[in-house]
Amino acid sequence: MDWDRQARTGVAEGVLCSGKSAAQIEAIVAEARAKGSRLLLTRLAPDAFAALASKTRKALDHDPVSRTAVLGGPMPLAESGIGIVAAGTSDAPVAREAERTLAFAGHASTMITDVGVAGLWRLMERQDELKRFRIVIAVAGMEGALFSVLAGLVPAPVIAVPTSVGYGVAAGGTVALNAALASCAPGITVVNIDNGFGAATAAIKMLAIGSRE
Amino acid sequence: MDWDRQARTGVAEGVLCSGKSAAQIEAIVAEARAKGSRLLLTRLAPDAFAALASKTRKALDHDPVSRTAVLGGPMPLAESGIGIVAAGTSDAPVAREAERTLAFAGHASTMITDVGVAGLWRLMERQDELKRFRIVIAVAGMEGALFSVLAGLVPAPVIAVPTSVGYGVAAGGTVALNAALASCAPGITVVNIDNGFGAATAAIKMLAIGSRE
Amino acid sequence: MDWDRQARTGVAEGVLCSGKSAAQIEAIVAEARAKGSRLLLTRLAPDAFAALASKTRKALDHDPVSRTAVLGGPMPLAESGIGIVAAGTSDAPVAREAERTLAFAGHASTMITDVGVAGLWRLMERQDELKRFRIVIAVAGMEGALFSVLAGLVPAPVIAVPTSVGYGVAAGGTVALNAALASCAPGITVVNIDNGFGAATAAIKMLAIGSRE
Amino acid sequence: MDWDRQARTGVAEGVLCSGKSAAQIEAIVAEARAKGSRLLLTRLAPDAFAALASKTRKALDHDPVSRTAVLGGPMPLAESGIGIVAAGTSDAPVAREAERTLAFAGHASTMITDVGVAGLWRLMERQDELKRFRIVIAVAGMEGALFSVLAGLVPAPVIAVPTSVGYGVAAGGTVALNAALASCAPGITVVNIDNGFGAATAAIKMLAIGSRE
Amino acid sequence: MDWDRQARTGVAEGVLCSGKSAAQIEAIVAEARAKGSRLLLTRLAPDAFAALASKTRKALDHDPVSRTAVLGGPMPLAESGIGIVAAGTSDAPVAREAERTLAFAGHASTMITDVGVAGLWRLMERQDELKRFRIVIAVAGMEGALFSVLAGLVPAPVIAVPTSVGYGVAAGGTVALNAALASCAPGITVVNIDNGFGAATAAIKMLAIGSRE
Amino acid sequence: MDWDRQARTGVAEGVLCSGKSAAQIEAIVAEARAKGSRLLLTRLAPDAFAALASKTRKALDHDPVSRTAVLGGPMPLAESGIGIVAAGTSDAPVAREAERTLAFAGHASTMITDVGVAGLWRLMERQDELKRFRIVIAVAGMEGALFSVLAGLVPAPVIAVPTSVGYGVAAGGTVALNAALASCAPGITVVNIDNGFGAATAAIKMLAIGSRE
Amino acid sequence: MDWDRQARTGVAEGVLCSGKSAAQIEAIVAEARAKGSRLLLTRLAPDAFAALASKTRKALDHDPVSRTAVLGGPMPLAESGIGIVAAGTSDAPVAREAERTLAFAGHASTMITDVGVAGLWRLMERQDELKRFRIVIAVAGMEGALFSVLAGLVPAPVIAVPTSVGYGVAAGGTVALNAALASCAPGITVVNIDNGFGAATAAIKMLAIGSRE
Amino acid sequence: MDWDRQARTGVAEGVLCSGKSAAQIEAIVAEARAKGSRLLLTRLAPDAFAALASKTRKALDHDPVSRTAVLGGPMPLAESGIGIVAAGTSDAPVAREAERTLAFAGHASTMITDVGVAGLWRLMERQDELKRFRIVIAVAGMEGALFSVLAGLVPAPVIAVPTSVGYGVAAGGTVALNAALASCAPGITVVNIDNGFGAATAAIKMLAIGSRE
Repeated sequence: MDWDRQARTGVAEGVLCSGKSAAQIEAIVAEARAKGSRLLLTRLAPDAFAALASKTRKALDHDPVSRTAVLGGPMPLAESGIGIVAAGTSDAPVAREAERTLAFAGHASTMITDVGVAGLWRLMERQDELKRFRIVIAVAGMEGALFSVLAGLVPAPVIAVPTSVGYGVAAGGTVALNAALASCAPGITVVNIDNGFGAATAAIKMLAIGSRE
Repeated sequence: MDWDRQARTGVAEGVLCSGKSAAQIEAIVAEARAKGSRLLLTRLAPDAFAALASKTRKALDHDPVSRTAVLGGPMPLAESGIGIVAAGTSDAPVAREAERTLAFAGHASTMITDVGVAGLWRLMERQDELKRFRIVIAVAGMEGALFSVLAGLVPAPVIAVPTSVGYGVAAGGTVALNAALASCAPGITVVNIDNGFGAATAAIKMLAIGSRE
Repeated sequence: MDWDRQARTGVAEGVLCSGKSAAQIEAIVAEARAKGSRLLLTRLAPDAFAALASKTRKALDHDPVSRTAVLGGPMPLAESGIGIVAAGTSDAPVAREAERTLAFAGHASTMITDVGVAGLWRLMERQDELKRFRIVIAVAGMEGALFSVLAGLVPAPVIAVPTSVGYGVAAGGTVALNAALASCAPGITVVNIDNGFGAATAAIKMLAIGSRE
Repeated sequence: MDWDRQARTGVAEGVLCSGKSAAQIEAIVAEARAKGSRLLLTRLAPDAFAALASKTRKALDHDPVSRTAVLGGPMPLAESGIGIVAAGTSDAPVAREAERTLAFAGHASTMITDVGVAGLWRLMERQDELKRFRIVIAVAGMEGALFSVLAGLVPAPVIAVPTSVGYGVAAGGTVALNAALASCAPGITVVNIDNGFGAATAAIKMLAIGSRE
Repeated sequence: MDWDRQARTGVAEGVLCSGKSAAQIEAIVAEARAKGSRLLLTRLAPDAFAALASKTRKALDHDPVSRTAVLGGPMPLAESGIGIVAAGTSDAPVAREAERTLAFAGHASTMITDVGVAGLWRLMERQDELKRFRIVIAVAGMEGALFSVLAGLVPAPVIAVPTSVGYGVAAGGTVALNAALASCAPGITVVNIDNGFGAATAAIKMLAIGSRE
Repeated sequence: MDWDRQARTGVAEGVLCSGKSAAQIEAIVAEARAKGSRLLLTRLAPDAFAALASKTRKALDHDPVSRTAVLGGPMPLAESGIGIVAAGTSDAPVAREAERTLAFAGHASTMITDVGVAGLWRLMERQDELKRFRIVIAVAGMEGALFSVLAGLVPAPVIAVPTSVGYGVAAGGTVALNAALASCAPGITVVNIDNGFGAATAAIKMLAIGSRE
Repeated sequence: MDWDRQARTGVAEGVLCSGKSAAQIEAIVAEARAKGSRLLLTRLAPDAFAALASKTRKALDHDPVSRTAVLGGPMPLAESGIGIVAAGTSDAPVAREAERTLAFAGHASTMITDVGVAGLWRLMERQDELKRFRIVIAVAGMEGALFSVLAGLVPAPVIAVPTSVGYGVAAGGTVALNAALASCAPGITVVNIDNGFGAATAAIKMLAIGSRE
Repeated sequence: MDWDRQARTGVAEGVLCSGKSAAQIEAIVAEARAKGSRLLLTRLAPDAFAALASKTRKALDHDPVSRTAVLGGPMPLAESGIGIVAAGTSDAPVAREAERTLAFAGHASTMITDVGVAGLWRLMERQDELKRFRIVIAVAGMEGALFSVLAGLVPAPVIAVPTSVGYGVAAGGTVALNAALASCAPGITVVNIDNGFGAATAAIKMLAIGSRE
């Protein structure tokens, strides 16, 4: 683990669990506990979590929806002005991964869901709220039209997180990803498919811009 | 040429000129003139048109923007209730190909341009007009968000025509095409990239639904 | 849920169940029941249906072949003039999703199956019947040659639904999809792979064209 | 050059000129003349032909449509029973490359053009003729539906030659290629896009099957 | 089922079982038995076979390696002169599907396995045998170099069957497929990935060339 | 044109000239002049610029390297703390498009070039300077390794701009794009290939985060 | 099996088990035992190993992490000067496949792990050690930036092994593969995704260069 | 320019000219002359060379076939034992780029051309010569079967250079690239499409293995 990443780059390293064995995950958690470090684990699916030793499981605050776990207890939260806007119910796991990553670093955020553009008035009704965010993390799969519509409405930078929700041409999330990259609307930047963690990490770095000279 | 297609399927065959030599195009025009048939030529770029014999050129009404030409003079136009909605200035050639194809069959249509979703209010301001169309032909490149937004707003069926306008991931029109296919909004059907002719032909067939029992 | 979509766009929203948890589906069904709304659920596979609470299951009319379920009882059906034409036995689930979506909205349709073009005379024998349809929903996987053959035969608009049936280059349905988009035949429009629901929804909007001025 | 290929495999090597300089082509022609060998050159576009030395040009029978050239004069032709069936006018160069390759080896063939499936009756009218061929070389671009329809009609093996004719998703010929490979109809085998030479060469090998024990 | 395909095109239809339910397969078998027709079923995996009714299973001669089953007992076999040449052990299921399809139609064939080009002398040692075949069905996955090497050696037409054996870039069989299509060697034609049935069907049609005038 | 975008979203709309005719560009410039608006034109290649009327050309400050033009004179520049870091000489046009877009909005930036990771010490030597930037716009083609290395070094958010520089697998910029999206390093967000304008626009929105509550 | 490959090409053939049945693997092992040959089996996953007969299992030294097994006992190891450098924990199986393949041929190697470029100083701290290797086998997934950074640092040839570790655009390993191929750094050559065996085999051949004249 | 790369990694940096302007190339050449450094320029096409100042052109030894130029005169050549083996005439530019890169570093090599596998005996006749090389650089486009055949024959490591020669599925060189990566033969490593320079650079590093301890 890159235990000094926090000091060097301003954000802690997350542990991507999807490619690791239970033994490898337990070793990392044990090392963190020995150092007294807090730790965020991502892509820790319920069955992978269940395969960990009881002692390890007890030390972790695991959230099955976002497949994240936190070692070291919650941080006191301060309002960040970050809005997480998700197009549909199925995008919730990724949106929540972003929310949990922000909370791990002490940032409270606001989640707005089910505002897909096929029902545009749902988004329009919440325009004023959307315009007040300092940063918007937009989460959408399928055709990803939400990214363009949002970025045309709000003054904040929009971080697009395409999700792998979809079927046919949309399977795997490539359509939403490319829609975000190809958007005509200003100020959209994009992270990898389903990468709620990466979007939150980038947002944390953006929040620090104002404090640097 | 399939001279009986009009009788059999309700729409005349168009002559796709992009893969044909000047000699082949002239032969088809001559055959049509001999039969007294009207004819629509598509993808006849200005330099391909210029390469035709003077006699042939004079017989044709050529429009360089849409790269279409008509043999046999204009039809009297009747209002069709079809709206052609284009996202940007660069989508004009494809939108106009649809308009010219409709006019060739005697259908007047309404063109609305520059209503891309990055400036959503431009679309919202014209909502009432959009909702009155019987069929909407939507033309957009880049990320193709217009398709979903429109189909969520209007009761008419939406025929999406993705265009090859764009660069990077959007080059060639595949992103707009997939966005149309993956759209969560109801009632969108899709034609090939840049196929304004095909969209218009499908619209003409749809207009005839009411007259069939 | 977009409970007003029916009023706004003429078709009700369907609930795509494939990305949703049992809890999420139950909440939506409960909300619909509380409102007295009818509801169509799609992509509700037999095991996902079985995972719902007994009370919810009893309220739903579930069809395992099409993986659809209806809340609120059947509508009285009126003949729509829509023909659903499927190339092979394996395309039945998608064809039936279209049929059930039409029935949910009160439209009776006619299903014709096993008319793939490798045995062209099966299609030719039924020409007269095919030519009487007001709209044709064509369902085919593999190489999708049915779309072109049908659209060259019938005067009605053809909505092509490519299916994911196939192996090798045809796996996933992309070949059938592209064949539909690239077809030389007039009047074909296309929906996403396996999207029987979308084809039916578009057909319902097309039926209404005649009633609008 | 593989001067013994004819003896070893039953077919002569062709010289693919598209990647070669004028000097390289002239050297090969000179070597053939020195050996008294006949030679078939393919993909020799008109401007590449024009760039050859006058002496070389005079020795060659160049056909600009198929971009082929023959050194050594025509062979006496014997009827082969091979039919070359092309979907559209734009497929003519590839169909003619096959025809010229067959003629180079002494095989007369029959060319049938403009029988795309969007006008199915054109194909049906010639059914009896089509059924008499011993081998069918089918040439089509766009969605390639011709391959399946033909193979369902005729008893002969069908060699599919997809062409690069098309635009949007069909650009480059991949859709027609995949349609041929994915076809449900029996007895289709496939060669590379635009490879009329390869189809003819395979047909020549097939003709020899009967003469081998 | 297309019960007359044998008469019309010279080869019987196979039943592709991979997309069909047990009920659908049983219905087809029952229909064939009622008609007294023989039947070849392909892609009938062991567990799908086991899911059939006992009565149906007893009527079928099932081969788990090739996943084929035959209804109606074996045909007397006559030597066809067809060689089936497979690159590696893992290609056996596809090679055997071809062998069983030929046998279903009464054609004995010769199988040669484990002659991948990485050990070229294995192939060279059997040159004389290979050169005597009237038709070669070549079966290979990974990089598919066998196709080119064989077609450069033998006078017979080579039908290439790429297999989905492989990993990394070769996963799914696309590399072997494209290698077959791109081959510089003469007389190769290609069928879909893993389509041993299609290769055999094409070979049967080729055998009949000599008997047609 | 979306003349109010500045007010609504904080950044002015740019005019993407690559898909527009000279007449269309002149009309937009004329409209801007009539309104007294400043204007940024992008993708205005030297020959497209040369095709404009003399009067229009004189009104524009055109930069051939970045293919940008500015109407309305330069803004007074204030230091923004934005660093533009480019891997190689060939990435200069895109890097300069970003620089010019920032300058159009009054932001001075610092350009660092030729720091590709194949010569890592060039980057390491400038570490201290790199760590002081508030935002880093990283521009790289080929394999895009610069994005990960930079984001592991600096505390600022990194906006990755993949470029279309490269050949073979890297042609078109997709490898660099995917490398940016797949990066393990924290805080990278990505824009479309060659989209220096979009990166700068996003950076301007990020600068404003600190000033919003 | 190609029992003479060692003599002919200097490296023994490995048995790729992923596409083979237990019976096929047992037959190969039995043949090797009968010949007294040593044997390396790759892609022998734990459950495939468990499915072998007890007698076979006992004869094999199976390593579950690398999924390799050795028949014939360990070779005495001599230092080869080959370094295996892996970016992350998840790349261990592939790195270890390379290490085991080297050891099977008698070559000791040095493994260095967890030196991904997001934490560049981990790599820089070990520069001197890295520069002493005669050959470097670099193993990395995701964006594959390690390949370029390493090849810019060390004088040894670098064999890049991209791994299938990753998600979203990086799923399957294609991004890392293309990054290796597109690298600007000198002296990188590349093997297939996850092909630790192939990298080790190539390294063994490279070691022999010095001993040949 | 990375003037110290030679010292650090053992090979000098090449100047890839394809993305650079004449002014940029001249500046680099001038800098090299000022330093008294030798320089290798690649991808310097004849027209790009012609666009350079006369003074610059005179200082360079330009080879139009390989599109390379050398500043600083030829090195005395010593036999390296490297064989460059090219499948066809069209692969000559890439093969020669490798040869010139080796010569720039003082290494004489042996070129063998026109040994494609469709005429296998051409390769077999030269087996003894091929087996004596210390390193083989194999250059092939189309289906790339040469890579596997060579690597199965010779004890030397094989560096595969796929070329962009080909049409249809082989256009751009991806088929040859993937064939090299997927090869079953031992000891192949691969470089980017058309990257003769990279193959030579890797070979130079491999030659040095023996001299390092």
